[in-house]
Amino acid sequence: MNDASVSLASIQQAAQRIASTAHRTPVLRSDFLNVWSQNEIYLKGEHLQKAGAFKFRGAQNAVAQLALPQHEAGVITHSSGNHGQALSLAARLKGIPAYIIVPENAPRPKIAAIEGYGGKISFCAPQVAARETLMNEIQAKTQAIFVPPFDHPSIISGQGTIGLELLSQVPELDAVIAPVGGGGLLAGLATAVKELKPSIKVFGAEPKGADDAARSFSAGHLIPQTSPQTVADGLLTSLGTHTWPIIRELVDDILTVSENEIIKAMRIVWERTKQLIEPSSAVAVAALRSPSFLNQFQNNHVAVVLSGGNTDLHSLPWCRD
Amino acid sequence: MNDASVSLASIQQAAQRIASTAHRTPVLRSDFLNVWSQNEIYLKGEHLQKAGAFKFRGAQNAVAQLALPQHEAGVITHSSGNHGQALSLAARLKGIPAYIIVPENAPRPKIAAIEGYGGKISFCAPQVAARETLMNEIQAKTQAIFVPPFDHPSIISGQGTIGLELLSQVPELDAVIAPVGGGGLLAGLATAVKELKPSIKVFGAEPKGADDAARSFSAGHLIPQTSPQTVADGLLTSLGTHTWPIIRELVDDILTVSENEIIKAMRIVWERTKQLIEPSSAVAVAALRSPSFLNQFQNNHVAVVLSGGNTDLHSLPWCRD
Repeated sequence: MNDASVSLASIQQAAQRIASTAHRTPVLRSDFLNVWSQNEIYLKGEHLQKAGAFKFRGAQNAVAQLALPQHEAGVITHSSGNHGQALSLAARLKGIPAYIIVPENAPRPKIAAIEGYGGKISFCAPQVAARETLMNEIQAKTQAIFVPPFDHPSIISGQGTIGLELLSQVPELDAVIAPVGGGGLLAGLATAVKELKPSIKVFGAEPKGADDAARSFSAGHLIPQTSPQTVADGLLTSLGTHTWPIIRELVDDILTVSENEIIKAMRIVWERTKQLIEPSSAVAVAALRSPSFLNQFQNNHVAVVLSGGNTDLHSLPWCRD
Repeated sequence: MNDASVSLASIQQAAQRIASTAHRTPVLRSDFLNVWSQNEIYLKGEHLQKAGAFKFRGAQNAVAQLALPQHEAGVITHSSGNHGQALSLAARLKGIPAYIIVPENAPRPKIAAIEGYGGKISFCAPQVAARETLMNEIQAKTQAIFVPPFDHPSIISGQGTIGLELLSQVPELDAVIAPVGGGGLLAGLATAVKELKPSIKVFGAEPKGADDAARSFSAGHLIPQTSPQTVADGLLTSLGTHTWPIIRELVDDILTVSENEIIKAMRIVWERTKQLIEPSSAVAVAALRSPSFLNQFQNNHVAVVLSGGNTDLHSLPWCRD
């Protein structure tokens, strides 16, 4: 994979690479959310992206850059979540194998989804050491190329295409909020919109129970996440060495929200917009009502990235107690 | 309320009356559903209509025709479901009261939704006699005008506006399937599309556990529904004296589906399109795979009306057992 740095140019190149396969997702409106948030809200519907999450953009941008003869060996990653599905689909569209390392305790629906997109699953013990050992084994055997879930310029640039689309769909935008886990989405988005319209404020949204980005941001150096506790299963990871410097430089603030706020926001979106979003997306919606955001924005044009819609329908957060 | 008969003209008039308040709902596509159904599928998204269901069209068309001085007294109906919400919202937009008679055993979320749209709820015992008595009492006291849930030309014409939109959105349409309960949606839709493009086949979709329309259709006379048993809570009622003759004349067939097929179709739509539809909508999706439909349609352009998205998120059908 190409290892150029992330820039508006790299994001524009990514947009060209993925144009024929990724959806240009719609921007959705809701009168209810406008009143609820005291702003004009634009929901960027990445839950309607292929494979149900923004992750397809980055995976597709990475896979599109693979060239013969290396690409025939396929790609490999570790992810029981949206990146595993996205990479499986991107590989299938190119006609190459995708090897996905999944912890043996991963939920059954996620495994089924990866298999549904043609990914070849190998199970490992849930520890990082076991995962690395197995990945090295499979790579040695197959020569498959590692496509990381977030911490790579090609991935970040792919996710940044959301920013290009958003600004063409909502030119009057004043602020945008995106969930932050590993930071690929937030870093790419910030790069795109800050370059095109520097007045736009860019916010990350994070669960209080997995707030490594907020703590890193206020400390000024990268603080890894340890033992995250949150319903937002897409936001458990730490920032990476590529994503953190971009976020530190370009993002205006990280907003944190409680588990109750996440679950409430998720229900509101389901009930009021009839859009099925996953908890990680709801984190960004919940952040609309965080005091520090409301103090700065009233009656402004605010976009929220609904990052994905892959959630286990047998285990909804409001039914767990 | 005006009691003219249902025609393309009455539907076009309805479309003008509701144009400034009702949403022109989008038509959604899904590669997965195309493969699953062996046809090109167009989902008419009435779950994205105001108040979360197609019912707003008919209610709004009826309320828009009320004139001073009669309209000041407000409107009244009996419905614990989507019509109660739709009429409450239509009345609120006109600034008049809506009295909604609700059985005392109605689910709490439905009551909350009606109240949320400003409806004034009165509870009655769950028997029809008790309902009629209470409605007569409130009407005598308030002079409110009865707006029935489906069996009235204004309501049917309002629902028929879906057909006008569908044909302008998908001119190449070969067939359309809509769920049938009281028949207001199906009768209005059939009137609109058969007049504009007689080659289009129009199908009703019904649960096997509430198949009065299918039985009426094959008997050639109206057979009322007794003791319906289905998860599709919007399809429990019998056809009416206005809806039945239209359906008998214009509809090509009624397709019936099992409870398992309904629940499976609902899950597929939730998981694959990320659209939150209610069980009644899933009945029409499930009908795509009924043998009698598949025998007639392969690789055709088929629309399915997703009639609504109001469902109790605490009690999802796949979690009940």
